[in-house]
This record gives sequence, structure tokens and C-alpha cells, in this order.
Amino acid sequence: MDRNGRGRCSTDPFRLTEYEGALWGRGASASKGPALCWLHVLEAFKQRGDEPPVNLRLIFDTAAEVGSPGLPSLLRERRRALLRDVEFVCATVGQRVGKRLCACHAARGLCYFHLTVAGAERDAHSGACGGVMHEPLGDLLFLLDSLHGKGGRIAVPELLEDVVQATADEETSYSRMELEMEDMRRHAGNANLLSGESKTRLLMQRWRMPTITLHGIEGAFSEPGGRPVIPRAVVGKFSVRLVPNQRCERVARGVRRHVAAAWQQRASPNSMTLHLTAAVEPWIESAGTKHFQASLRALKLVAPVVEPETGRLGGAVPGAPVLQALTGRSVVVLPLGGARDTARGHNEHITLFDYMQGHRIVAAYMQEIANMK
Amino acid sequence: MDRNGRGRCSTDPFRLTEYEGALWGRGASASKGPALCWLHVLEAFKQRGDEPPVNLRLIFDTAAEVGSPGLPSLLRERRRALLRDVEFVCATVGQRVGKRLCACHAARGLCYFHLTVAGAERDAHSGACGGVMHEPLGDLLFLLDSLHGKGGRIAVPELLEDVVQATADEETSYSRMELEMEDMRRHAGNANLLSGESKTRLLMQRWRMPTITLHGIEGAFSEPGGRPVIPRAVVGKFSVRLVPNQRCERVARGVRRHVAAAWQQRASPNSMTLHLTAAVEPWIESAGTKHFQASLRALKLVAPVVEPETGRLGGAVPGAPVLQALTGRSVVVLPLGGARDTARGHNEHITLFDYMQGHRIVAAYMQEIANMK
Repeated sequence: MDRNGRGRCSTDPFRLTEYEGALWGRGASASKGPALCWLHVLEAFKQRGDEPPVNLRLIFDTAAEVGSPGLPSLLRERRRALLRDVEFVCATVGQRVGKRLCACHAARGLCYFHLTVAGAERDAHSGACGGVMHEPLGDLLFLLDSLHGKGGRIAVPELLEDVVQATADEETSYSRMELEMEDMRRHAGNANLLSGESKTRLLMQRWRMPTITLHGIEGAFSEPGGRPVIPRAVVGKFSVRLVPNQRCERVARGVRRHVAAAWQQRASPNSMTLHLTAAVEPWIESAGTKHFQASLRALKLVAPVVEPETGRLGGAVPGAPVLQALTGRSVVVLPLGGARDTARGHNEHITLFDYMQGHRIVAAYMQEIANMK
Repeated sequence: MDRNGRGRCSTDPFRLTEYEGALWGRGASASKGPALCWLHVLEAFKQRGDEPPVNLRLIFDTAAEVGSPGLPSLLRERRRALLRDVEFVCATVGQRVGKRLCACHAARGLCYFHLTVAGAERDAHSGACGGVMHEPLGDLLFLLDSLHGKGGRIAVPELLEDVVQATADEETSYSRMELEMEDMRRHAGNANLLSGESKTRLLMQRWRMPTITLHGIEGAFSEPGGRPVIPRAVVGKFSVRLVPNQRCERVARGVRRHVAAAWQQRASPNSMTLHLTAAVEPWIESAGTKHFQASLRALKLVAPVVEPETGRLGGAVPGAPVLQALTGRSVVVLPLGGARDTARGHNEHITLFDYMQGHRIVAAYMQEIANMK
């Protein structure tokens, strides 16, 4: 969370606060709360004098929000010590989308870009210098706007390639998901979803379609009020969400090619640079593995009345593709938080119900894995 | 000056500091320093026991930086008390562009706009919500980028109308101005001027051509680093510099029409609003009036070796068109500051030479006016 966000929270985000049946604070839902579930379950076994039913190796990734730049090389280097004999990988990150408990077998990836246009040694005044020079902010907006075409569609052709086609079964599974469009509107804080009332379309857009989001601009005038400044240099921040089977390298190459072509078209004497500042590969597995089925049984054990759902994550899980590749084993993601937790945002929280249920899910998962052996 | 700028200044901008032959601090050149010249000259007359050669009425406009929203109505209301018997109007604002002393007879105007696109109740996360909704920042960038067409030219037709055509005499006067392109490049902090090496083109772009400058965006991610936020609502800040004979009302109408058309083309379900937050009419007078000629004589008295120049201001002088209209008298602007003062910017200063010379210009102007009568 950025420092400025602090003032917009109802409670101090750096102090855990309980009220209205929930725990409020940064990390409550993503993912300090879920991480504690593991530790508490181990503690419970210890207090009862029991051995846990399986051996655990816990990895806490504290840099997921910036794409975990050091994680792949660290895991590769310490592979022998950390990943030897690993048989199953489970991550309790992310939030459920629908009403029922959910096990996830895929996550989108991320390529985060910083696009800089620099033109002058210092900021200038639009009265004195407006009309005198090529203004970097105009160039940057042109480049950023070029990423989307008519109707807001992605205009970088490479970003629409390599997308795994949806099977009929997959589409059916989306339509079966228990999800109120009204809840989704509330989650997004937005009444106008691109999907209209189609649940299938919504979930496909969120889980299995690449998107480009423009996040903001550094270096320009961003305060309230008016100031007649011509910013000397500006940095546009945008990111691509990758889906299976896209690869960061190919996506970054496509974005580079597109931006370079748009820049040539602009014919500006300013300088332009594009940096890829975070890269997380997308991750996908089959929902048919024994490990995944055991995970679903664990969820059913915790909430036996309804069938658990199988889903995906819209966000990136840096550890998932790396652990999948390094262990050669199946990875499952069990989101313990709910859709309305505003995870990683303002007023982040986890309900006491979800938090306590999270402990049960972790214990049941360990038991189901033990039963498989 | 914005508070954040404080850290980028070599001296505390709110504490006047003398070093390297200049006075450094906010307002040193625009326009507390020049305002002091009038007070000191009056003080000198008083100390000598002399009457000033003319009666003075001093008006200090402290809100010029935001377009002086209250000035026209205040002057209109107090017209009888403040403007009765006024025969000549002189403003010591702005900075010289060239090397020689200069009297100005025109200034560009200003229409400052806040363009808001709002889509959601709160910021969202691009992992959870990227692809789910129309993102307001994408809409805003589309609208802002639409203000300029190919090659960075203004795309709002109304903004290119009503521009007074340059006479051959006028163009010649530009080419005669003593101005080093290298100085102008330094002033703009920019090596790539739109004018190339043409002095005439540069001065016309700066003084008599309308321009649109994009200043920045409020509400989006503007800090260093990366954050995967989808901003809920964003405000784009941009302004138009108006030239004689343009009128704020007509320019604002043109911008409104253009933005509304672009918005319709975008077909977004988000909400869009456009506010005109500051409006200053451009101002122009004949350089042939007796008043203007007396002003030039005053400058010649102070610096007798070379002819003073006649020029314009690229910035807006809110008082000039209002005082011109309310008094029906001729207005002249005498810029006392130099081209490199970085007025209204960081490290603003006025050289001791210009500051002391400013006192002489004010005294000489008063004397020349007295001689006319």
C-alpha cells in the first residue's frame, strides 16, 4: 500500500483492528491472514502433542506485490535444500470470486512497464514555453493511448496470440459458478461491467483473457488545483495481464515493437525508453490431477453442503509457475479470502468466518494429502 | 509554487537569498521584486522631500497564477473608487525574451480545464478487475490525446480561428529582435525547439499562436515504483493559450464540443465532465500610441546605447484586458525580469542588475508620463 493510501482507510492499515465481524489491516486477506492459518494449525498439533499428518515446508514470499523479482533465482539456487522431496505444492493466496469455496488451477501473469518520455532539463511554464517545444506529456499520452484501439480493444497484436482457446467444458464450468453479478459489481466498485450480465463472459475476461491496464503517470502535475506546468519528463506506468500460454518474453517483445512503431509515427525529438520492471509468467495446470481432486475433497470436508468450485486467479502468483517448473509437481491455489476483502487495496479485511474457516481448510488439506499416500 | 517543489530548489523558495549576483526566492522575478521597485521609487521621492511627478494608483493582483478569478468583478464594482481619472495603465510583470529592454503591447490569454472521467466507487486491482470494466484512465488518455492531431497539431478547429493575421511589418519586427536561439533553448531547457533556427517562427509560436498544453493527471498512480491500481476516477488538467482576437467563451465552447464528440466516439459507460477552472482573455494594443512611445523613451533613458524592443507576452496578464476595458485607456507592460529568471518555477531569481535597473525603469516611466502632459 502506498503511504498516501493510509489517510483513505477507516482504520490504521498497519495496525490489525477487529470490528463488525472482520479483521481489518493491510495483509489481513492478502496474505498475512492466510499465512497465519498454517502456523496456527501446526501450533494446534503441537499443543495436542500430535505429529502433523504430512511434512511441511513453508515458503513466505514477501515481494509478490512487485512481481517477486528474486524468487525464481533464489529457488533455483536453493533448489536442493528447499525443494528436495516436495510432492505437492499448495498456495493460500488470492480471493474467491463466487460464493462457494474454490480451488484454483491457473493464474494470469504480469508484465509491468515503465515508459519514459523526456524532453527538457527542467519543468517549464506554459505561458513562456507553450508552443515552443514538443511537450513530453503529449508524446507519452499518444503512446499510452495507442495501446488500445477502437472500443478499448488491445491494439498490440502479439498480446492476442498464444491464448489457450476455451473448451466447451470450460465455458460450462464458468456458467455453473455461483456468482451474483451484483456482488461482482460491488467488488469492482463499478456498475458497468464489460461483460454485461453474462457470468461466463465476466469470468473469461477476468481469468483467461489478456488485458492492458494504464495505472498512472509520474512526473506530471498530479495534485489538486491547476498549475500551468510543462513537465520536463514523464513516466507512464502500465501493465499487461498474461494468460496461459503467453510468455513474458514474447509479450514484452510485442509491446516493445508496438511502442517503437508508435514512437516512429510520432516523430518527436524527445527521448523515449521502455522498461519492463516486473515479469511473472502465467500459470496453468489440469484440474484433473489427484492432487487437485484431493484439494476439492478438503474443501468439501469443510463445507459439505455444496460442491466446491474450480477456478482461476486474475492476479499473478509469482511462486506458482516457478515451483511448478522446479519441482515438476502439481500446484494448487486455495484462496481463503472472500471477494469483498478489497485485498491489497484500501480498507483490506478478512471476515472472522473466513479466517477461522481458513484454518479448517488448511488442516483438511493436510489430512486429504496424507490420505492419498 | 507547489509544496513539493520546495525540495527541488537550491535555496528555500520562501526565504529571499542573495548569492551569485542575484536575489533567489519565489516571486523574486514574478512579481514581488518588480512590485517593490514602485514602492522604493516612491520612498526615494519621500526621502528627498519631493513630490512624485505623477499621481499613482497601485493595484497588487495576488491571484494571477490562478487566473485572477475575482479581479474583473472587483474592479468593475470599485470602478469609481479605483479607476476614476486613470489616464495610463502600466504593469511590470513578465520577463524579457531577448537581450534588450522591452515594452509589451500584447499577452496571450488562458483557458484552464479540468476533465474528469469517473467509473467506480473505489480504486481496484488490475489482477482482480483488469478486463472486467471500462477503465477511466484509458478513457481520459483517449480524450486528452484527441486534442492534438497528426504531428502534434491542435485538433480543435475553433482554436485555430479568430487568430489575428501577422502583418509583414510584424514579422520583420520579430526578425529584428536581438535573441540568441541558444538562450531560448536554455530558457526552455530544451534542445529541440519547434521553430528550428527561425527566430521569427519561435516568437510567433510563443506570442501569437494558440497552443494546448497537457499538464498532468490527478487521481492516478503518480509515485515512483509500480502499483497495479485501476484508478476509480481521474482528472486531466490541460490549458489553452489564447491569442488576439480569440475569446475565452468561444474557445471553451470549441473545446466542449470537441471533447463531447470524442466522448461519444469512445462510447464509454463512465461519466465525463469538463470544467473551465480559469479564464483570462488575451490582450492586445497598438504599439503606436503616445503612451507606448513614452514607455519606449523611458527604456531608452535607462539603456541609451541600443533601441528598446517592442514585444508580447506568452503568458496571461489577467489585469491587462480588464483594465483596458474598464478605463478605456492604453495599457503597457514593462517586463523587468530577464529571460533566465525561471519565473514561477524552481530556483526563481532576479539578477541584482535587473532589480536595480527596474527601479530606474519605473522612475523613468513616471518622468516620461509627466513630460507628456
